[in-house]
Amino acid sequence: MNLSKRIKAMQQSPIRKLVPIAENAKKQGKKVYHLNIGQPDIVTPAEFFDAVKSFDEKVLKYSFSQGIPELIEALIQYYKRYDIEYESDEILITNGGSEALLFSLIAVADHGDEVLIPEPFYTNYNGFSSAVGVNVVPITTKATEGFHLPNKEAIEDLISPRTRAILLSNPGNPTGVVYSPEEIQMLADIANEYNLFIIADEVYREFVYDNLTYTSFGNVKEIQDRVIIVDSISKRFSACGARIGSIASKNKELIKQILKLCQGRLCVPTLEQIGAVELYSVSDDYFKSVLEEYQKRRNIVYNSLKEMPGVICEKPTGAFYVIAKLPVVDAEHFTIWLLEEFNVDNETIMLAPAEGFYATPGLGKDEVRIAYILNENVLRKAMSILKDALEKYPNKK
Amino acid sequence: MNLSKRIKAMQQSPIRKLVPIAENAKKQGKKVYHLNIGQPDIVTPAEFFDAVKSFDEKVLKYSFSQGIPELIEALIQYYKRYDIEYESDEILITNGGSEALLFSLIAVADHGDEVLIPEPFYTNYNGFSSAVGVNVVPITTKATEGFHLPNKEAIEDLISPRTRAILLSNPGNPTGVVYSPEEIQMLADIANEYNLFIIADEVYREFVYDNLTYTSFGNVKEIQDRVIIVDSISKRFSACGARIGSIASKNKELIKQILKLCQGRLCVPTLEQIGAVELYSVSDDYFKSVLEEYQKRRNIVYNSLKEMPGVICEKPTGAFYVIAKLPVVDAEHFTIWLLEEFNVDNETIMLAPAEGFYATPGLGKDEVRIAYILNENVLRKAMSILKDALEKYPNKK
Repeated sequence: MNLSKRIKAMQQSPIRKLVPIAENAKKQGKKVYHLNIGQPDIVTPAEFFDAVKSFDEKVLKYSFSQGIPELIEALIQYYKRYDIEYESDEILITNGGSEALLFSLIAVADHGDEVLIPEPFYTNYNGFSSAVGVNVVPITTKATEGFHLPNKEAIEDLISPRTRAILLSNPGNPTGVVYSPEEIQMLADIANEYNLFIIADEVYREFVYDNLTYTSFGNVKEIQDRVIIVDSISKRFSACGARIGSIASKNKELIKQILKLCQGRLCVPTLEQIGAVELYSVSDDYFKSVLEEYQKRRNIVYNSLKEMPGVICEKPTGAFYVIAKLPVVDAEHFTIWLLEEFNVDNETIMLAPAEGFYATPGLGKDEVRIAYILNENVLRKAMSILKDALEKYPNKK
Repeated sequence: MNLSKRIKAMQQSPIRKLVPIAENAKKQGKKVYHLNIGQPDIVTPAEFFDAVKSFDEKVLKYSFSQGIPELIEALIQYYKRYDIEYESDEILITNGGSEALLFSLIAVADHGDEVLIPEPFYTNYNGFSSAVGVNVVPITTKATEGFHLPNKEAIEDLISPRTRAILLSNPGNPTGVVYSPEEIQMLADIANEYNLFIIADEVYREFVYDNLTYTSFGNVKEIQDRVIIVDSISKRFSACGARIGSIASKNKELIKQILKLCQGRLCVPTLEQIGAVELYSVSDDYFKSVLEEYQKRRNIVYNSLKEMPGVICEKPTGAFYVIAKLPVVDAEHFTIWLLEEFNVDNETIMLAPAEGFYATPGLGKDEVRIAYILNENVLRKAMSILKDALEKYPNKK
């Protein structure tokens, strides 16, 4: 019996495949600072655990396929902070942002259809697309341009009769880009002119620095029936292990159709939904303090990178990632070298080689993604290790 | 923008679509006994909640994509009770049995491939298959034969060059059938001769009555590289709202490939996995007492049905469902009539019309599925309401 072509073609997580090498380094007694994954160290608000622990029913029953009404209501209130109005039949709770993305792709594209995605992109966009037979067409963006979008014509050139949607994260993972209001409007115009959906992964909505104006696709009124907003509590409230995401769209027919997929998997865990209600009710102070913390970290990482000879990166303005071009021939080799052969006082760092974030072969070979999800002191130490390593690494460009 | 053909073609849950009618009946003050869904009233073992509540980390982090090691180990021990040996790299934890099914289908079949499924079947088999472009080819089984399988030739006739797998639940939902050791061996032979996978949904493994011999596909040694066992804690431990399922297979390459899908969705909720470890460690007494309870219920339902004129059903021997052929023209109409127009002392019942469990058009129109998931007294009352209703219902055959 043969496995399906689609599963064999699926890209392995470029980050997770290096995990055994890091584990090995740790076994040999090396301390490894993880700059490679988006697992924040910020404490999950206690309200989450309190709510989960106060659950006192005797039977843990199936919940509603669309999500519990209290959580849908909490999301409606949350979106109002951003001037976005949703009704209860316009929101579905999902198993993380991951399921929201998977279901959105199934709903807008058939086998062989195409979805435009600015690259470098969150690699799982690729994985989900292959799994359900959707072809990814990358819109290439560049480190030297801060990963902002090319002009309208360049994007239009990529559209074919099979293009069904534009999928993007804003703020961007792995780039840290925040698209300008003009870029958002340009994409909205394209969606309108070419009859496309926009799947807007806005899980990092709160992580926008330097008081920059953030435009959600939920704010572009004239294309609301084309917009699908994907959200998650993972990064927003440092609750990655809860796996609570959501889909929101003013296109009620779309929501009704995706509800069939939700019914197919019956429901999302009850306990985490109860916890998530409390998270979406935290005060603005929570967001403010988390934002300050990340902005401080962004500054540490960016300022350190700017001081390293040969490193190219524009100041990232959102999420908690930065992609840096390093003066190395092969960033994956550099990452492995860091784990296997390098240390400063028996400490080293783990990076995410960026090639896996690109769909176009050959791009990103000298780039890494750095997640600034560690505290100030550790970050400083980690960046100093990187600086040292770049000096000593033999395979430089 | 158009929605995908596949999502529009997806069947709506035949059970969930009647929910608004039941809600309406309740709003009018009617008590509705739900025989339509597999939501047991059995108490979830307290060990689950105790474990969840003892979680004391400050950050709810991402967990391992394959599942936490403790839960994988608990499953290895659990399978040993059934003489099934798995190693830790042969098991993946999933978001319920639902995700296990979805991932298995993606892994064994490409767009346009076929999967054989004995009908009537769990409707979500159909939903997942359409979502990922796999065609369901039904192996028709009959109420009059207790839903046992047809002979080998009849099944072989359904096999085409695009057939990739046989998918089945054993004990069966919605039929309550438990396949004999000979039936299991016949399917194993077919899988071997035609180079097919077997996706064995065995979530009701413990629910086998009358001391019948149960054969898991995990016990058919000679085809272990073809067998994928789907499991779930939902019914086994009455923990439907936890959404913890699993995939097990001696085919390590298959597991390795499906792990890519698991990595794509990052992980399964941490808290429920911690709870599930405790569930899989409950003593045999738990299973024994639950089994006794369900066997008693099965007897009540079956004996009541046998007394109703014109009702046809063979004694079900597993799971907690029975499909009965009723002396009515249209079981869906009868179900709606029960909710909208009938009552005994202001009480009525909700059934699951069985037509939606068949892929072959026209089959099951006069059949319903009854889930015996309510306690003895309520079940007796519900069955007496059914008897009464069948006498008074106008559109009889």
